Amino acid sequence: MGGDHAPGPEVAGCVQAVREHGVRIVLVGDEPRLRTELRRLQAAPPGLVIHHASEVITMRDAPGQAVRSKRDSSMRVAFELVRRGEAQAVVSCGNSGAMLACGLLVLGRLPGVERPGIVLTFPTLSRSGRIGQCALLDMGANTECRPVTLAQFAVLGATFARLHNPQLGRPLVGLLSNGEEESKGTELLREAHALLRRPVPCDFDYVGFVEGQDVFQFARQEAHGGRCLDVVVTDGFTGNVVLKTAEGAAHLLGDLFRQQVRGSLLGRLGALLMLPTLRRMRQVIDVERRGGALLIGVAGVVIICHGRSSPRAISAAIALAREQAEAGIAPAVTAAMERHRALWSTAS
Amino acid sequence: MGGDHAPGPEVAGCVQAVREHGVRIVLVGDEPRLRTELRRLQAAPPGLVIHHASEVITMRDAPGQAVRSKRDSSMRVAFELVRRGEAQAVVSCGNSGAMLACGLLVLGRLPGVERPGIVLTFPTLSRSGRIGQCALLDMGANTECRPVTLAQFAVLGATFARLHNPQLGRPLVGLLSNGEEESKGTELLREAHALLRRPVPCDFDYVGFVEGQDVFQFARQEAHGGRCLDVVVTDGFTGNVVLKTAEGAAHLLGDLFRQQVRGSLLGRLGALLMLPTLRRMRQVIDVERRGGALLIGVAGVVIICHGRSSPRAISAAIALAREQAEAGIAPAVTAAMERHRALWSTAS
Repeated sequence: MGGDHAPGPEVAGCVQAVREHGVRIVLVGDEPRLRTELRRLQAAPPGLVIHHASEVITMRDAPGQAVRSKRDSSMRVAFELVRRGEAQAVVSCGNSGAMLACGLLVLGRLPGVERPGIVLTFPTLSRSGRIGQCALLDMGANTECRPVTLAQFAVLGATFARLHNPQLGRPLVGLLSNGEEESKGTELLREAHALLRRPVPCDFDYVGFVEGQDVFQFARQEAHGGRCLDVVVTDGFTGNVVLKTAEGAAHLLGDLFRQQVRGSLLGRLGALLMLPTLRRMRQVIDVERRGGALLIGVAGVVIICHGRSSPRAISAAIALAREQAEAGIAPAVTAAMERHRALWSTAS
Repeated sequence: MGGDHAPGPEVAGCVQAVREHGVRIVLVGDEPRLRTELRRLQAAPPGLVIHHASEVITMRDAPGQAVRSKRDSSMRVAFELVRRGEAQAVVSCGNSGAMLACGLLVLGRLPGVERPGIVLTFPTLSRSGRIGQCALLDMGANTECRPVTLAQFAVLGATFARLHNPQLGRPLVGLLSNGEEESKGTELLREAHALLRRPVPCDFDYVGFVEGQDVFQFARQEAHGGRCLDVVVTDGFTGNVVLKTAEGAAHLLGDLFRQQVRGSLLGRLGALLMLPTLRRMRQVIDVERRGGALLIGVAGVVIICHGRSSPRAISAAIALAREQAEAGIAPAVTAAMERHRALWSTAS
């Protein structure tokens, strides 16, 4: 109920997800409004039930306070369903700060996790032309971080990457900095780097400091079997800057392309011929296909969607939720945190 | 002499700059090698003289130490020429940390400047289709900053923007954060924001927190006369992340485009028809056209170029150096720092 245009796109996205992915969905929110939306769509899929909740956490609400005071808000009620095991994951386009607060207050952190993080995937392209995905975290749960938190994010990110892509093996993990050399970075980053390069057994390969471009095309990939990075670790402030800058640069290029095409007859004809090519390219960089971001480190599967998500994006987010729930992200994180304790043990 | 492929591209860039921009150039470095390069180019332009320097600061050198110990390095000697008024600007593709150290040690800071910054311009596109430039600083001189430093960067950036574009009037200045709301940002950013919104007379319009995408296309431009941002202020760590992420995203899109075009006959034909369109687009985003970045806040004009700059980029950097020298960036900064003292006076 808390998305920018809720609950229209949310209900349509759920209907699409039931049809496309065969999931079963509990729609939590104002029952009359949800029924109206379903009637408008002339949809009554068998796998979709409504659970009434009388309150709404809005985008303007202060997250912690709203989660505590609005006990019958659609968001909080949905999280309670997950806590009680009546649902296996929660997906929402609502206030992302409140999603984090619900994750912490209602579900709680998994054993050993200092701070949950938000993971989002970015498209990558290897030099041999292979298209893949790089998981970046934290995307905004923690504006400021401690070295231990960043070291833990490497473990969380690697665990996500392996469940997201079962063929992966050992994920390649980098720490985002302003240069590759060990002398670069802030004090925080140099301390996190010191933890991550400890000679202890790991499920992933830590490659050291990486730079912004390495998220998309890993500069040192030849030294790592021609592979792109699977995980890039950063604090929530910098993660937000990376996301917004990448989207901004892509938008600028798209708009410049359209502007130049419009101004030329040859350009228009060329673009017409290229339509299928441009569509295939669009599929790779399509942010709607990834659906949402995973809140990782809490005792449950939580997918945070953009406030203005389309039905298609919401359906994709639900598919991601099911993938992570079926793969067992929570027990996998608990086990991975225990296995990698030596990375940060005396430091925390 | 300190660029990655020096002195070949440097000499060729200088020859091009003399021809294109009619500047007079002192080539500082190993005289026999510079003469060899000039002979190879069969160039002896009248405006180009050689000043011998026996040492070289390399990319591996520790900046501060190298600048102090290599007194006859090409970089240090070039800075000395500027300090003595025998040259009006210095341009180099060498070790950028050493460039900063030379700026501080040889030229010194301008009155009132706490820390010099590095300014680089990014292409912008307004909703009405106007292409412009946004100056981002700091691009790496200061990995960690104080609130006063960021407030001063707003003044430095606005001064650069006005000299770079004399038609500008009052520059629009934003502070890069992870959201527009005043509650966003780190403590550093909220303190810098508190300084910049002080009700004191300014030569620029401060718009508050902005996000990564606003560097390219300002989201709130309608509220500001349909204009894009002229200046975005950030610390040197985040500035580096913005630059590398934007370049990485653009590269990814370019490579995906080429990959998809190669795989399709229609795509190839379309791309052929679109060549002039793609070339015009390329001109807008061409990083070689901006040449280099300005080290602002020191007593002289200093342009820092990429270590692997092409002759074309070096010629463009020389044109930028002349522009800033002729426009009088150093006296303009001194006057602006004095005029805007009230922004940070009791806080520093």
